[in-house]
Amino acid sequence: MTLRVGVIGGGQLARMMIAPAVELGLDLRVLAEAEGMSAALAATATGDYRDLETVRAFVADVDVVTFDHEHVPQEVLRALVADGVSVHPGPDALQFAQDKIVMRKRLTELGVPQPEWAAVSTLAELQEFLDAHTGAGVVKTPRGGYDGKGVRVVRSAEEARDWLDALTDGDALLVEELVPFVRELAQQVARRPSGEVVAYPVVETVQRDGVCAEVIAPAPGASARLVEVAEDIGRTIAEGLGVTGMLAVELFETDDERILVNELAMRPHNSGHWSQDGAVTGQFEQHLRAVADLPLGSTAPRAPWSVMVNILGGPVDGTLESRFGSALAAHPQAKVHTYGKSPRPGRKVGHVNVASDDLDDAVYVARAAAAHFL
Amino acid sequence: MTLRVGVIGGGQLARMMIAPAVELGLDLRVLAEAEGMSAALAATATGDYRDLETVRAFVADVDVVTFDHEHVPQEVLRALVADGVSVHPGPDALQFAQDKIVMRKRLTELGVPQPEWAAVSTLAELQEFLDAHTGAGVVKTPRGGYDGKGVRVVRSAEEARDWLDALTDGDALLVEELVPFVRELAQQVARRPSGEVVAYPVVETVQRDGVCAEVIAPAPGASARLVEVAEDIGRTIAEGLGVTGMLAVELFETDDERILVNELAMRPHNSGHWSQDGAVTGQFEQHLRAVADLPLGSTAPRAPWSVMVNILGGPVDGTLESRFGSALAAHPQAKVHTYGKSPRPGRKVGHVNVASDDLDDAVYVARAAAAHFL
Repeated sequence: MTLRVGVIGGGQLARMMIAPAVELGLDLRVLAEAEGMSAALAATATGDYRDLETVRAFVADVDVVTFDHEHVPQEVLRALVADGVSVHPGPDALQFAQDKIVMRKRLTELGVPQPEWAAVSTLAELQEFLDAHTGAGVVKTPRGGYDGKGVRVVRSAEEARDWLDALTDGDALLVEELVPFVRELAQQVARRPSGEVVAYPVVETVQRDGVCAEVIAPAPGASARLVEVAEDIGRTIAEGLGVTGMLAVELFETDDERILVNELAMRPHNSGHWSQDGAVTGQFEQHLRAVADLPLGSTAPRAPWSVMVNILGGPVDGTLESRFGSALAAHPQAKVHTYGKSPRPGRKVGHVNVASDDLDDAVYVARAAAAHFL
Repeated sequence: MTLRVGVIGGGQLARMMIAPAVELGLDLRVLAEAEGMSAALAATATGDYRDLETVRAFVADVDVVTFDHEHVPQEVLRALVADGVSVHPGPDALQFAQDKIVMRKRLTELGVPQPEWAAVSTLAELQEFLDAHTGAGVVKTPRGGYDGKGVRVVRSAEEARDWLDALTDGDALLVEELVPFVRELAQQVARRPSGEVVAYPVVETVQRDGVCAEVIAPAPGASARLVEVAEDIGRTIAEGLGVTGMLAVELFETDDERILVNELAMRPHNSGHWSQDGAVTGQFEQHLRAVADLPLGSTAPRAPWSVMVNILGGPVDGTLESRFGSALAAHPQAKVHTYGKSPRPGRKVGHVNVASDDLDDAVYVARAAAAHFL
């Protein structure tokens, strides 16, 4: 009778679904890429998520399928749907998270504010776009990029020649205007198959080297209008793209108070980790509720301010565990989340959440606690 | 390098250690009594915790041993300690939770306020105690009782004749005065082997038919003096008995504002479940930190009021899961915790936590959400 939720991918996002699944009484089953991954505790199968028969065998005894990442090929997803499997988010929605050009086209149709963009496949097309946009732009490979990979700021088409040369017939690169943003924001929403949508407060995200480093919830100084516009964008995209589960919308805030959509993720996202300890319903629980088509939980904050700081890399010598003593002793209010990964430069190996009545205090404690692990 | 924590017993308390263990990066391993128990996800062994060789085999690859219950025999515990195993709480502490007469003697030595009591093994001894205490008393079997079992209010020694007749040589029953209490309270503290102790706010517990039904945190209307006295009692017992891990002290509050110790539990306890969602550090995380000798976490409340309501029995027809839709839809701020148990009259199958700025609101929502499962 217990609902079985299958997660394809055994990374930290699947791992962080384990805790709410246990409490909510959902039977979480993970198809991991290998032994010993972050979500190993819930792994019931190991194999290649690109192989249809591997995935078919895994989903044979689950009630609903969801994901740790967006990399499962469309042909696998569509075969599952044809088999009658309940897949959330489904392939029609996931295509927009898998291909940035497809996403830009759809957001244009929906009238969602976004950077000016073009699909380009030749040096001439790219240079023409750059010439029309202050001589600079952001070139992106439409597929497979994450954490700054597959993204390049260029001031001449020549700087993307290698990517253009590597294109096969019919493919294109995405180029976007270089948005003069003052900060980056993120909007989390959840949508369940029956249509209910809930929105979290918009948050500020701080990136370093293309990787999320810190998140402050809610976004400091956000006007009521900004909060409303961000939520509207999140709801419009979730509904317009037919997203089921969590949706993260990464946003630019410009100096003239516009908000433009940067990227999408259709799963729990780093910018929503604060909600584990800072909201009544954390994003991992919310994702499970959404994909299981259970009523969604309150997104109300538990504290005036929540701050998330990533543990990037981990200790240069020793394990995360070797730093627990000092980190926890110094900061009894810090909530440390570990991913069961070996330290490696730049790797996301955990994060720290701190909730507080005082923003400066929350930022200080979260950074200080995370620093114990470096 | 990951610290391996072994839990003897596969019930809901072991189950609720899974979530914080995953986030904190502890490798939780459970010796369950049978297949399919509440903590099945973390079960690495199945067997009888009274059998030394079964327990020895289980603890062979853990770093520290703790418990879901207090029923592991002293001889098994002492054999583990002799083997060099790190056991928390250890047998010297656990004996006080295993035998109520041993506990009463030790609390008397420590000067902790408690009901008047005696160890009695004959009708005459019991009647003498009753005659000296308003003609009534609470008779308890010293070992093995829980949730009202092994406890009987008597107004004549004859009413305990069957228990007295069943005593073997040298054994005794515990009799306590019938305390004219106005309400019941509980004090949670955690103590780690290196000596650090932290205390939670004292809470009010509401029992029905000898079973915990509701908990309100903090105890409404508690004076600063009462909070301090309760905390002092908790610390005195944790230190005096050498407890490691969570300690729950069940208390009577009398109409003349005295606080008397009723029962002890050396593990996470039903009266502390509110802390999962209502405190910065929940009792299950705190227990793991304590037994692993990691620094203890903040016990600060996350909200002015937290209310826990047990789901006792579960649906008379259907499963808990069948009621999820209505319960979660009606109460998006309720946190539902399920134990993976089949419904059965009177059985604890889950609980609901609600945190709120308003006590009446928290009580209403927690009761209403729990009622969906009945």
